Amino acid sequence: MSKLKSHISMSADGYVASPNQSPENPLGEGGESLHDWVVALEAWRRSHGREGGEINASTPIVEEMLENVGAILMGRNMFGGGPGPWDDAEWKGWWGDDPPFHVPVFVLTHHPREPLEMQGGTTFFFVTDGIEAALERAREAAGDEDVSIAGGAEVIQQYLAAGLVDELEVNVVPLVLGGGERLLENLGDDLELEQVRVVEAPGVAHLKYRVVK
Amino acid sequence: MSKLKSHISMSADGYVASPNQSPENPLGEGGESLHDWVVALEAWRRSHGREGGEINASTPIVEEMLENVGAILMGRNMFGGGPGPWDDAEWKGWWGDDPPFHVPVFVLTHHPREPLEMQGGTTFFFVTDGIEAALERAREAAGDEDVSIAGGAEVIQQYLAAGLVDELEVNVVPLVLGGGERLLENLGDDLELEQVRVVEAPGVAHLKYRVVK
Repeated sequence: MSKLKSHISMSADGYVASPNQSPENPLGEGGESLHDWVVALEAWRRSHGREGGEINASTPIVEEMLENVGAILMGRNMFGGGPGPWDDAEWKGWWGDDPPFHVPVFVLTHHPREPLEMQGGTTFFFVTDGIEAALERAREAAGDEDVSIAGGAEVIQQYLAAGLVDELEVNVVPLVLGGGERLLENLGDDLELEQVRVVEAPGVAHLKYRVVK
Repeated sequence: MSKLKSHISMSADGYVASPNQSPENPLGEGGESLHDWVVALEAWRRSHGREGGEINASTPIVEEMLENVGAILMGRNMFGGGPGPWDDAEWKGWWGDDPPFHVPVFVLTHHPREPLEMQGGTTFFFVTDGIEAALERAREAAGDEDVSIAGGAEVIQQYLAAGLVDELEVNVVPLVLGGGERLLENLGDDLELEQVRVVEAPGVAHLKYRVVK
């Protein structure tokens, strides 16, 4: 059965983005450091068409995260292009002509837009009828493979609160951001987690949870 | 050199106590579940004069936490007896006549009170001249041994913000409390952590950090 899963890097104090997010700093000032552990990895660099990089205890975690993903869900803020209607029709995301997804990506938005076919198998579909409809379309596109929620925090929260997530892996980075966007809030009263796996790796702790329905 | 250290259990969403703390529920409603992993352990039960219990990957963590502690710092709220002056002079903490500390315990309070000598080597000293004075007295009492901050969150925060803590071990429990007392906030702008160790154990992830000065 196809799973709905999410993997996200979080500071020790619970933030997945730092304050003052902007087009120049999509993860806020200092927020990029949340991803230092992953961008250094050979496994991540390979998936982004780059060479070199480290191999360490995070490698199997990232390989597992990337494998068997047939479709991706993403919030409008993560896709970018500013809030509101798509005035800038030229905006095609942060990732250039050949985004690193290589599968259909369903962007949750209140503002309709035609699908955007990129190179390398990535097509952005803009879904305006809510998280359940988006998940249904993503599952259909994914077939037997899993659906992954790329972010941001608000979208992950909405799927968690709706009881739709199967697996959540939190990559806890030894940073104290002191503010920004928190991951685990607005989750309702009855969310239950079960610890599946904990892995120590350089500069990060991988905490994998199953979400109990 | 004697270290200042703290070990505390925290929910996945960052809380060390849940909402609605009361004399009946000192950790709030549902907050006691934060300690399920530790009270089941033989190592913890032994230190509290009880028999039986489990031995698992948390055992060496708890043994390390308990060893080499020569004095303890504690907030007034954790000691209990209500806020304000010591109207109830009979209040001697939550732990009975023979508290499980067996070393001098320095309670941070705004309200003076005579030292309280209990059985088994625990004496509560009430310190009214601030966290640095309390630490100085605790270090003196501890000699070559370490000083441990027992809690609550506010006291740990104050010592972290003042740059006085050497080691922080956060025991992350797969609970979502949704509210209560957060551990890692009000820490100032320049707190830096370095990940020392991550240990997977049944129902808990032990994340040990060195605080970089």
